[in-house]
Amino acid sequence: MNAILITIGDEILIGQIVDTNSAWIAENLNSIGIKVSRILSISDTREAIKTSIDESFVNSDLIIMTGGLGPTNDDITKSTLNEYFKGSFIVHEPSLAQITSFFSRRGMELTELNRKQAEIPDCCIVLNNQLGTAPGMWFEKMGKILISLPGVPFEMINLMENEVIPRLSKLTTNQVITHRTIQTFGLPESFLAEKLSEWEGQLPHNLKLAYLPSPISIRLRLSAYGDVSMNLKGLIDVEVKKLYQIIPRIIFGEGDDTLQSVLGQMLRLRSATISTAESCTGGTIAHLLTQIPGSSSYFKGSVVAYSNQVKEEILGVDAELIKKFGAVSITVVEAIAISVKEKLKTDYSIAVSGIAGPDGGTLEKPVGTVCFAIASNKSLFSKELIFTSDRQRNILRTSVTALNMLRLMLIDENL
Amino acid sequence: MNAILITIGDEILIGQIVDTNSAWIAENLNSIGIKVSRILSISDTREAIKTSIDESFVNSDLIIMTGGLGPTNDDITKSTLNEYFKGSFIVHEPSLAQITSFFSRRGMELTELNRKQAEIPDCCIVLNNQLGTAPGMWFEKMGKILISLPGVPFEMINLMENEVIPRLSKLTTNQVITHRTIQTFGLPESFLAEKLSEWEGQLPHNLKLAYLPSPISIRLRLSAYGDVSMNLKGLIDVEVKKLYQIIPRIIFGEGDDTLQSVLGQMLRLRSATISTAESCTGGTIAHLLTQIPGSSSYFKGSVVAYSNQVKEEILGVDAELIKKFGAVSITVVEAIAISVKEKLKTDYSIAVSGIAGPDGGTLEKPVGTVCFAIASNKSLFSKELIFTSDRQRNILRTSVTALNMLRLMLIDENL
Repeated sequence: MNAILITIGDEILIGQIVDTNSAWIAENLNSIGIKVSRILSISDTREAIKTSIDESFVNSDLIIMTGGLGPTNDDITKSTLNEYFKGSFIVHEPSLAQITSFFSRRGMELTELNRKQAEIPDCCIVLNNQLGTAPGMWFEKMGKILISLPGVPFEMINLMENEVIPRLSKLTTNQVITHRTIQTFGLPESFLAEKLSEWEGQLPHNLKLAYLPSPISIRLRLSAYGDVSMNLKGLIDVEVKKLYQIIPRIIFGEGDDTLQSVLGQMLRLRSATISTAESCTGGTIAHLLTQIPGSSSYFKGSVVAYSNQVKEEILGVDAELIKKFGAVSITVVEAIAISVKEKLKTDYSIAVSGIAGPDGGTLEKPVGTVCFAIASNKSLFSKELIFTSDRQRNILRTSVTALNMLRLMLIDENL
Repeated sequence: MNAILITIGDEILIGQIVDTNSAWIAENLNSIGIKVSRILSISDTREAIKTSIDESFVNSDLIIMTGGLGPTNDDITKSTLNEYFKGSFIVHEPSLAQITSFFSRRGMELTELNRKQAEIPDCCIVLNNQLGTAPGMWFEKMGKILISLPGVPFEMINLMENEVIPRLSKLTTNQVITHRTIQTFGLPESFLAEKLSEWEGQLPHNLKLAYLPSPISIRLRLSAYGDVSMNLKGLIDVEVKKLYQIIPRIIFGEGDDTLQSVLGQMLRLRSATISTAESCTGGTIAHLLTQIPGSSSYFKGSVVAYSNQVKEEILGVDAELIKKFGAVSITVVEAIAISVKEKLKTDYSIAVSGIAGPDGGTLEKPVGTVCFAIASNKSLFSKELIFTSDRQRNILRTSVTALNMLRLMLIDENL
């Protein structure tokens, strides 16, 4: 079964709100084997609604429509659907009772507009909305289904979970889709694709690979299609196992893992602590590390040394060293890493110094130049890299790259 | 001119990511008088792409398409558009040069896949992508326009701002929409709405007000509708002037202003410097301040004192004070503010200490409790606030609240 999602409302078309309902519905339909072939946002006019239904029923047996069910005059979904399915309005007594109680609990009188919300086309099944005053509606016509739900996210979710998903589950055939997402860092998309091309080529025909790049990772998503009798999870597991053998160091996690969450787990496991000393990243590494609940058990603190004076006075870096090699140099960043590790009494430290831009670049050290140093009780790793010319991207890329360097050091030290 | 937005990619149809690009594009098309009549997300198959173009060109003269331009095999937008518009691939030399330099700056060799990104249909205008390796494309056919952009948000935005909007602006007719956005901080939405209800009631009929709340500000957007002969900007200006008189201290800026950008300007104007000492925010205040290009002229650095040991040893806070009052107390946070201001030799300092959660709360000091202190050469301001129970939200709210406290101090000191 294929579904098409239709969101009704001008607030989406003028960019005032982002449609988050559709992602939620799509994910939850997938889990009962229904694939979403299209997501559509349209204007709240009768013509737009009718046209989109006609179009969608050509390619799909199921439409889930959200929005336009409110009490005010600009909400025309219900009357349009009544016209489309050639019904007549009747008062739906259970809904009227529910709406009345909804308002009386708040100590309010029912208005005429609210009472109208209990008038429902006689050609649909009413879906009970426990959290609001607009009931959901389920229409059927020549083997096609249209479900209309309120656009308020928590009302929609409640109706989906309690009314829609249980009914659809009974109708769906045994086709299911299973996904698994692998998080990678350290190889650009094209290099990763080259390295994985042979593996990708031998994937079973019902297994699909997608690359989802972002500044903080490239996610690899494997989707398996089949029927309930097939062990799709097992099929994916076999291929993911091969993947781990091809790029063991590049994979840092799965699903919602982030470099900072994975690093946190590794530090916890080792009962190790960490500090950072940041110049160009201006506190972003510390900011990322402390996003993780419980990070205070391994993260002790950071010195954001934006000016050289702070590097010298707080971190105790030799002023001569900065004068001779420059603040953005391997020599200075190594000295900073060692100093912050000692001063904050941690097992590991990360230090970065660079030119985030847009100003401050020179011929020798252009904007985007960053020096990294990672210190542990056993070793000192350092590296210079050159990123792009965009300030915010440089800061983020530098921060996650530094986290990844520490991750690799922790792996290597454990060997 | 009406536009239809088409987003390509299965990651949206399975609910893995939410389409935020479309809202951005819709809002920015509005500002040059182009209305979006439909937003569509489709699968990355040739058939889905071609069908959606055919359908869209029936009702609209302009399609903006994002996604599916990456270097890997699952990215088929470019070759599908080449087929649709009956073109042939040629190597676009400026793009090849740009891609080559993109990789050489990172010290990497170009792969065959990357080289392929410079192959462009000969029937389109190439839009220069300064931030990535997939160029944008502008196709025209019998008075209809199709623009294809990469799906990575910052690449898409850069291409829209520098290539697409300027070209489209020249083509649009005389119906225009003008927006002006006022940034506020410090009053919850319902209080703000009450304070502004009288003003809102007297707005001209072609002027619309929208509240756009987020954790970092509540934006008030005024939209004026009319034709080019009307002075829409002047109409908005009159109303905004009244607004400034109603909530002078609540408004901190306009448009893309952020508390950190506004604060940066204020500090620059005063040739003043700032440092921060952060506990629960873990470097987020420094992270926000250093997002601003040129912030090194006023931001000297930060001490992220996550552990008490760092508060004592690096900031020199009396251990007895922490023992007696607790790290989350007005007394300690005031001592921290004074200390970091002295140690980093700045004119102002911000200090925060709190319980971000989910753990660490007590009956007396529940999760969400935060103590703030702002120090200057003239005064010391401190305050305790209690936020919610969500960690990431607490961190962000604490950080922007601290920035706003310093903003108000700077205003008051100038009086």
